[in-house]
Amino acid sequence: MMQRNSQPLPAIQEHLETYIRNFDFGKTPQELYEPITYLMGLGGKRVRPLLALLAYRLYRADYEQIVAPASAVEVFHNFTLMHDDIMDQAPLRRGMPTVHEKWNANTAILSGDVMLVKAYEMLLETPQEKLAEAIRLFNRTAAEVCEGQQLDMNFEAESTVSEEAYIEMIRLKTAVLLGFALQLGALLADAPKADAERLYAFGVLVGIGFQLKDDLLDVYADKAKFGKQVGGDIIANKKTYLLIKALELAEGKTREELTGWIADENPDKAEKVRAVTSIYDGLGIRELTEEKIRAYFDQGFSQLSELKPNDKEALTLLTKVVEDLINREK
Amino acid sequence: MMQRNSQPLPAIQEHLETYIRNFDFGKTPQELYEPITYLMGLGGKRVRPLLALLAYRLYRADYEQIVAPASAVEVFHNFTLMHDDIMDQAPLRRGMPTVHEKWNANTAILSGDVMLVKAYEMLLETPQEKLAEAIRLFNRTAAEVCEGQQLDMNFEAESTVSEEAYIEMIRLKTAVLLGFALQLGALLADAPKADAERLYAFGVLVGIGFQLKDDLLDVYADKAKFGKQVGGDIIANKKTYLLIKALELAEGKTREELTGWIADENPDKAEKVRAVTSIYDGLGIRELTEEKIRAYFDQGFSQLSELKPNDKEALTLLTKVVEDLINREK
Repeated sequence: MMQRNSQPLPAIQEHLETYIRNFDFGKTPQELYEPITYLMGLGGKRVRPLLALLAYRLYRADYEQIVAPASAVEVFHNFTLMHDDIMDQAPLRRGMPTVHEKWNANTAILSGDVMLVKAYEMLLETPQEKLAEAIRLFNRTAAEVCEGQQLDMNFEAESTVSEEAYIEMIRLKTAVLLGFALQLGALLADAPKADAERLYAFGVLVGIGFQLKDDLLDVYADKAKFGKQVGGDIIANKKTYLLIKALELAEGKTREELTGWIADENPDKAEKVRAVTSIYDGLGIRELTEEKIRAYFDQGFSQLSELKPNDKEALTLLTKVVEDLINREK
Repeated sequence: MMQRNSQPLPAIQEHLETYIRNFDFGKTPQELYEPITYLMGLGGKRVRPLLALLAYRLYRADYEQIVAPASAVEVFHNFTLMHDDIMDQAPLRRGMPTVHEKWNANTAILSGDVMLVKAYEMLLETPQEKLAEAIRLFNRTAAEVCEGQQLDMNFEAESTVSEEAYIEMIRLKTAVLLGFALQLGALLADAPKADAERLYAFGVLVGIGFQLKDDLLDVYADKAKFGKQVGGDIIANKKTYLLIKALELAEGKTREELTGWIADENPDKAEKVRAVTSIYDGLGIRELTEEKIRAYFDQGFSQLSELKPNDKEALTLLTKVVEDLINREK
């Protein structure tokens, strides 16, 4: 016990990993189930189920009780990755071939479908009196994540996207799932309803902050620490927060230059990254984005100060884990 | 009441149609939700939710209470159609363009995903004390349907498929969902557990019979009454029960002729249908298949004679509805 209390995070993470690794997704036909084990085995930080467990620990110590429903969030997240990667024609996921590349699109569709079913199977390990509420919240979140993905695809075909519409898209596509994970932990721990709602708001707000930080790092990351190519979003004309703000603010020759790079179908890539970054610099986009990110994180953390946890140390741990995620550079 | 009791079937069907038509699947983004309304609006006989309601009525009269969870089975079924049609590259569904043809594959993937979530949303309208069991059975069935679809795709690439493997594939792909629909109705009506299991077995057995009958009608349907091209499966070399049996039984020159037609990449289609049908005739495939179908139906209906329903007339109606489905010629 001493050991676990002094090093709670590694113990919690190990418990989670073991559960996910040992879960029987299914055996035959193996064409259906192998891709699930493959994708789940590619790793990742398991942020979402970890947040559920950490939220639970604010009110109750026995987090082992909810490892199954918490893991449902991770399985759901990976299901969305499997299907999104088909839609985005992405060749790589965590540096490895995506499922539709390693197998084919049909396999990725069908394995993804059964993965969503398996997420509900894990969620079913919720005590009966809370099951309906857990599934109700999960259903709402799952539909919202699909809506976010659809909006993201719609934006690709639109010439301009407003800041407001962009924030709403990333809220749906990525932030609400973090909110749900925290809310689920609170619900399962019998937290006060107000606390569950504040934890949801916390997750959504920092979730939006994370996505904006992703957008920022694509351009301004330290090349040595960044896991991917710097400027990838610029090369792909991806409508990130940075590009949306730049298109909103640029005037005259700067605007012409920016739209010129966007319209150029065969640019020198390195030159394009340099030029667009320099336009961003001139417009103060970096500072604007950093300010916005800070505002979302501040708003998020202010939710935590209102909580009434049973275990203050658990709140310190939750805070530290999210701060570490914020300070990552890749 | 008089009216409803004297004409229960149209009233039940109308109730079901109204619920499905009025259900709010979602509004925005419309690219996500329109395909759902489109596919659900293409009609169909709503056999699965109807079976759930008819099974429920064996034990309780107030079937209106379970229209939502019964309809979950129909939404799930249509979700599988939307995704299967992508995988099978099917251009038409109920005589209208499939979702991936009318929109595109990405839309069909994502709308299908959210449709599966909506099925769970409808299923959630189950009383709390039965919710976990309803979802557990639904999850198992949903995973099995995906397994059946994967086996079906696997069989396309295999040169021979055994009769046993084929029956197992159609059991998973189509029959277990009929079984589940009946079992769900029984569960929600507090039927004796043994009855719920017999109704499940009934659904699975007649479900296998239906699929074998589909295989038979493709070749031996009355052209005037059949909705599709007679011989479509023969032209496509589809591994139906008929072809599997023919490949098992044919010898010598007959076998050569049959495998010749299968290997011919550019045959005269009408000639191929005539020739293969004539091989089937010579091998007695029609009689063999009819016998097999009868055996599945007989085994299925024998389950019903063991039931202990509260309402004998309701059993007469369930029997009649399934018999009518059996006697359809298209």
